[in-house]
Amino acid sequence: MPPFMRMCTFQLPGPLGPLVRLGVIEGDRVIDLNASYRDLVADDPLADAVLPPDMLGFLQSGQRALAAAHDVLRMAQPVAFDLADVDLLAPLPRPRSFRDFMAFEEHMQAAMKRRGEPVPEAWYQIPVYYKGNPDTFIGPEQDALWPRYSQKLDYELELGCVIGREVLNATPDEAMEAIFGFTVINDWSARDIQRLEMQCRLGPAKGKDFCTAMGPVIVTGDELGPQPDLWMQARVNGEVWSEGRSGTIHWSFAQMIAHVSQDERLYPGDVLGSGTVGGGCGLDLDRWVQPGDVVELEIEKIGVLRNRVGRPACTT
Amino acid sequence: MPPFMRMCTFQLPGPLGPLVRLGVIEGDRVIDLNASYRDLVADDPLADAVLPPDMLGFLQSGQRALAAAHDVLRMAQPVAFDLADVDLLAPLPRPRSFRDFMAFEEHMQAAMKRRGEPVPEAWYQIPVYYKGNPDTFIGPEQDALWPRYSQKLDYELELGCVIGREVLNATPDEAMEAIFGFTVINDWSARDIQRLEMQCRLGPAKGKDFCTAMGPVIVTGDELGPQPDLWMQARVNGEVWSEGRSGTIHWSFAQMIAHVSQDERLYPGDVLGSGTVGGGCGLDLDRWVQPGDVVELEIEKIGVLRNRVGRPACTT
Repeated sequence: MPPFMRMCTFQLPGPLGPLVRLGVIEGDRVIDLNASYRDLVADDPLADAVLPPDMLGFLQSGQRALAAAHDVLRMAQPVAFDLADVDLLAPLPRPRSFRDFMAFEEHMQAAMKRRGEPVPEAWYQIPVYYKGNPDTFIGPEQDALWPRYSQKLDYELELGCVIGREVLNATPDEAMEAIFGFTVINDWSARDIQRLEMQCRLGPAKGKDFCTAMGPVIVTGDELGPQPDLWMQARVNGEVWSEGRSGTIHWSFAQMIAHVSQDERLYPGDVLGSGTVGGGCGLDLDRWVQPGDVVELEIEKIGVLRNRVGRPACTT
Repeated sequence: MPPFMRMCTFQLPGPLGPLVRLGVIEGDRVIDLNASYRDLVADDPLADAVLPPDMLGFLQSGQRALAAAHDVLRMAQPVAFDLADVDLLAPLPRPRSFRDFMAFEEHMQAAMKRRGEPVPEAWYQIPVYYKGNPDTFIGPEQDALWPRYSQKLDYELELGCVIGREVLNATPDEAMEAIFGFTVINDWSARDIQRLEMQCRLGPAKGKDFCTAMGPVIVTGDELGPQPDLWMQARVNGEVWSEGRSGTIHWSFAQMIAHVSQDERLYPGDVLGSGTVGGGCGLDLDRWVQPGDVVELEIEKIGVLRNRVGRPACTT
């Protein structure tokens, strides 16, 4: 895995509209990696190709970009801003793709118990997932969209894994090396329509695709390792609703990556979600968020992903 | 819908490797739209922006590109090649996204009958779909990948619909106007792993994402209309296995588009699949293709999508 960094995408006010930039957070400041690197190499015309100003470009630039970022972080005077003066967006504003798994046994058991059925044997044979919509990602502090067709919106507390290397038919070791870093994901869910879709055993699609939140940062580095055991908590208006540990996961990210990569390529910028940690959603608790509620998902060593629940457009 | 054209993506041998180009097929020749338009406007520097050389760019350029294509098709001497001298690729080599529905009642009934269950009421309430992998599309005459983890590969005979206009919360009329054209889709399926995934009510993913075939052309125009009733046939090594009509579909593409567009944007270059026509796959017939077999899917007024079944990599 790359050296330890807390990477973000941030937005600065500019004369022609907001500027979206790639950053590393250190304390209460955010370092603009690309602008600093331009300074460092005296506006070498290759600077943007080596260390692009956006997260997807950074991931695609690979080892070259990581080495350049490392150089920037040793500069005495990098280009930096006060964290309080910028807005954070989703660290990867549009993932290349989003595969969301159901890798926590406790959450699967709860889902099947509601249905009055045992956990299917198949769940233990392969890590299963659906694919989400990369167009509808939001970042910290943005309102979650309440879709007009739903009466039952829900949060899902998930660990997200960002791919940094192209892999095909990966061994478990290659799969681990493909991990760039981790983030917090709120897989917002419209439970009423999701139930209809899952009755037909397809998707879910409209139950999920309206909104997915990611952030506040992507944390890289050996401090976490490829299979971190992190404390996870969901709070609604400050009250703790859900709590768990990422170490209770049944399928490791290395196993998920190796599985997906069988005769199918994964690319830098692809994102995998763990699925909900046990008890990590309102459905598991039969408690339901309302428009205006503030949902905070926190994962140890990564941070807090905070979103307000929006109002359905058809009722405003 | 745009005026009638048989649009394709074709490949020409070039001195630095193959050139991939956007074309319109007329009889036994293919007209290079972009090269012809460059001629027409005497290499105006905006020519590539108005009529880009690739299908996705063409769709994104919208009405402007359609008007320019119309001008090209009235030229006395457009730039054209013999169809026999070029290779056709998937007409949209990498769709922006792929949503695959299950919109034929007869296919859904057959699937539920195998399971010994009735068709769920939910299937009649909303058009359900899964999302495929836009990275693994192939075109006519390319080998379908037999994934190493499957013993049971299958074809699926589907009508594909290409979106040409951005829509959000579309009315049925707006949904119809968003249709750019139609194509043939073979939604290659690995039935053994798909069964495991659908037992867990997620996806399918590995059951589908290794390969999807599209082609040979995208047919636009009023000749088809937004809800065409077309004869469809699947042949294996020349023998007819499946036959049906697209008019037996339960959900129209306008209904599917209006449904997806609820609080979620569709964009030019997004592709929707109808799902398998009744009896339109080996699973419905309990007949199975083998490595080396040639599968031809034909839809009236569109053409024949022909692919050879590949050999699993782990056995060669």
